Amino acid sequence: MMVARAEDIHNAERNDFHPQPDLNATLILQALDFVGVAVFAVSGALAAGRRSLDLLGVVVIAIVTAVGGGTIRDLLLDRSAFWITDPRYLVVIIAAALATVVYARAFRVPEQALQLADAAGLALFSISGAQIAESVGTGGLIAVVMGTITGVFGGVLRDVLCAEIPMILRRGNIYATAAIAGTSTYVTLQGLGIGRAGAAATGMAVIAALRIAAILWNLTLPVFSLKGPNDRS
Amino acid sequence: MMVARAEDIHNAERNDFHPQPDLNATLILQALDFVGVAVFAVSGALAAGRRSLDLLGVVVIAIVTAVGGGTIRDLLLDRSAFWITDPRYLVVIIAAALATVVYARAFRVPEQALQLADAAGLALFSISGAQIAESVGTGGLIAVVMGTITGVFGGVLRDVLCAEIPMILRRGNIYATAAIAGTSTYVTLQGLGIGRAGAAATGMAVIAALRIAAILWNLTLPVFSLKGPNDRS
Amino acid sequence: MMVARAEDIHNAERNDFHPQPDLNATLILQALDFVGVAVFAVSGALAAGRRSLDLLGVVVIAIVTAVGGGTIRDLLLDRSAFWITDPRYLVVIIAAALATVVYARAFRVPEQALQLADAAGLALFSISGAQIAESVGTGGLIAVVMGTITGVFGGVLRDVLCAEIPMILRRGNIYATAAIAGTSTYVTLQGLGIGRAGAAATGMAVIAALRIAAILWNLTLPVFSLKGPNDRS
Repeated sequence: MMVARAEDIHNAERNDFHPQPDLNATLILQALDFVGVAVFAVSGALAAGRRSLDLLGVVVIAIVTAVGGGTIRDLLLDRSAFWITDPRYLVVIIAAALATVVYARAFRVPEQALQLADAAGLALFSISGAQIAESVGTGGLIAVVMGTITGVFGGVLRDVLCAEIPMILRRGNIYATAAIAGTSTYVTLQGLGIGRAGAAATGMAVIAALRIAAILWNLTLPVFSLKGPNDRS
Repeated sequence: MMVARAEDIHNAERNDFHPQPDLNATLILQALDFVGVAVFAVSGALAAGRRSLDLLGVVVIAIVTAVGGGTIRDLLLDRSAFWITDPRYLVVIIAAALATVVYARAFRVPEQALQLADAAGLALFSISGAQIAESVGTGGLIAVVMGTITGVFGGVLRDVLCAEIPMILRRGNIYATAAIAGTSTYVTLQGLGIGRAGAAATGMAVIAALRIAAILWNLTLPVFSLKGPNDRS
Repeated sequence: MMVARAEDIHNAERNDFHPQPDLNATLILQALDFVGVAVFAVSGALAAGRRSLDLLGVVVIAIVTAVGGGTIRDLLLDRSAFWITDPRYLVVIIAAALATVVYARAFRVPEQALQLADAAGLALFSISGAQIAESVGTGGLIAVVMGTITGVFGGVLRDVLCAEIPMILRRGNIYATAAIAGTSTYVTLQGLGIGRAGAAATGMAVIAALRIAAILWNLTLPVFSLKGPNDRS
């Protein structure tokens, strides 16, 4: 086999690179992961509510939304899925989903709540995903890809399961774009010698700001459209 | 890396926990798996027939339906996909799919045949999935999740590929709910000291009974609906 | 655990079977992989252009199309995803996607360009996927399945993400069928003692010829249709 296994890369990294992991960064990483799954669970439960699913269907969609991106990342990096090794994530997700149902029965959920929760989850997950890729020794390009997968694919799976067009594909709405911009910022700042925490905070701010600006002012990127004006549907 | 690998969990379990696997249970588990893949292959072939696919497309959908859930379970538990290590599963699936095509050309397939085959497959796969999760040493919550994934996601992949709204998401139809209820029953009964075979049979009966009752009497769970009466589509 | 791990199979094969890999075959395999990802990236970028995505969304769809099938194959065979261990694939994909955007802004893309690019990618990926399965020691049936997955699932993921009915499911259009026929030809010819390169070239020719014939003359396979003439939609 001509390829090195991610596991080998990881082992090499464990021995030669960071003999002692940065405890602070590890704790921040884990705390962000818990906040991120809770936020994405709320986003999933709200999407399920808009499809009028039954109560356990809501929990299923909340779980898929919250763990989908990170699970794909973990499978690709040959790690165990984070929620299998630490089932507390599932408890947090189920609690967040049920709390959303209870809240939404009593109060009106504002129109943009789903989009804002999604923007926050996107920022948290993209950067923590890039950090996890770094922690197994990948280079910058793969860290950007893994961060984007972590941030984007939980929502993609939610939208595919709810039979909606994935939010990332809605015309020029700066979604995957925000994740790529923020994780690239994070990787670039570290390359310039900025500390990890500062680079992470800046990257998250870039993602959240781009998404919120895109929502508030309908910012769009130039689109690539193959059809002529006559057959535009 | 702060997580233990499922493989490590499995090795620890192999050494300390069950020095001799229960041969009877292993045989039952394997027999159920073969019946389950055949039943889900029939369900997949019928769904493909409703979309008027060509004959090899029918085989592809039958395979995806039959192995999809178990494959996701195996990837998550860091096991080899069951049908790669034992290609007899594929032979069973292809035979079941072709037999379905031949049968359906000669006889009328009753309206509810797809739903009943699906209910049987759901019961078989959910419990065998939970048992496989247990066999690599996971706790009860993860066993319930893995059982539900095993039972539900073959059908989800089938529906996504056939561009239908997944059956699990049709309004309040007690599908994922049945899988969760049955696997929870199975795990709980074992926790109460009931033997494995009895717990498995009871769990499967719960799943099949809930699904069939839901189909016959249109039972539904309360749904979580965010839209008001004016904008319900 | 009653199953052997793909990794074990691979290690056994590495020790006993081919003490020295065929360097020529390895180089051809790798070159085909690069051509294949570029072709599928073009196909993905064109599909994204038809959905009017923004520029980075085009890159995301191009990447998913180009690496999707091979990534599922690698996860199933317990290999690291090929693009993680060799990020040059991503560079090729991004370059091909951007070149497609630039080209399509200046020139008209012919109606059938998407389908022809897809046929070429299908032929290249199906055979190289079967070869990779062989290289980790699987039997012929699994090699056919892995080749078909490699060739077909990038496009399936592209279509699912673009909320289109997957091309493989369009009525009787000989898509998965072509991949299965070509990889079966490849495996069978090797079983008859034909050399690897000749078998691979023949298998690719079978796939490309079947797809192009199906496109040009609207060849179809007999379809399996469950509905009667009255309720055909």
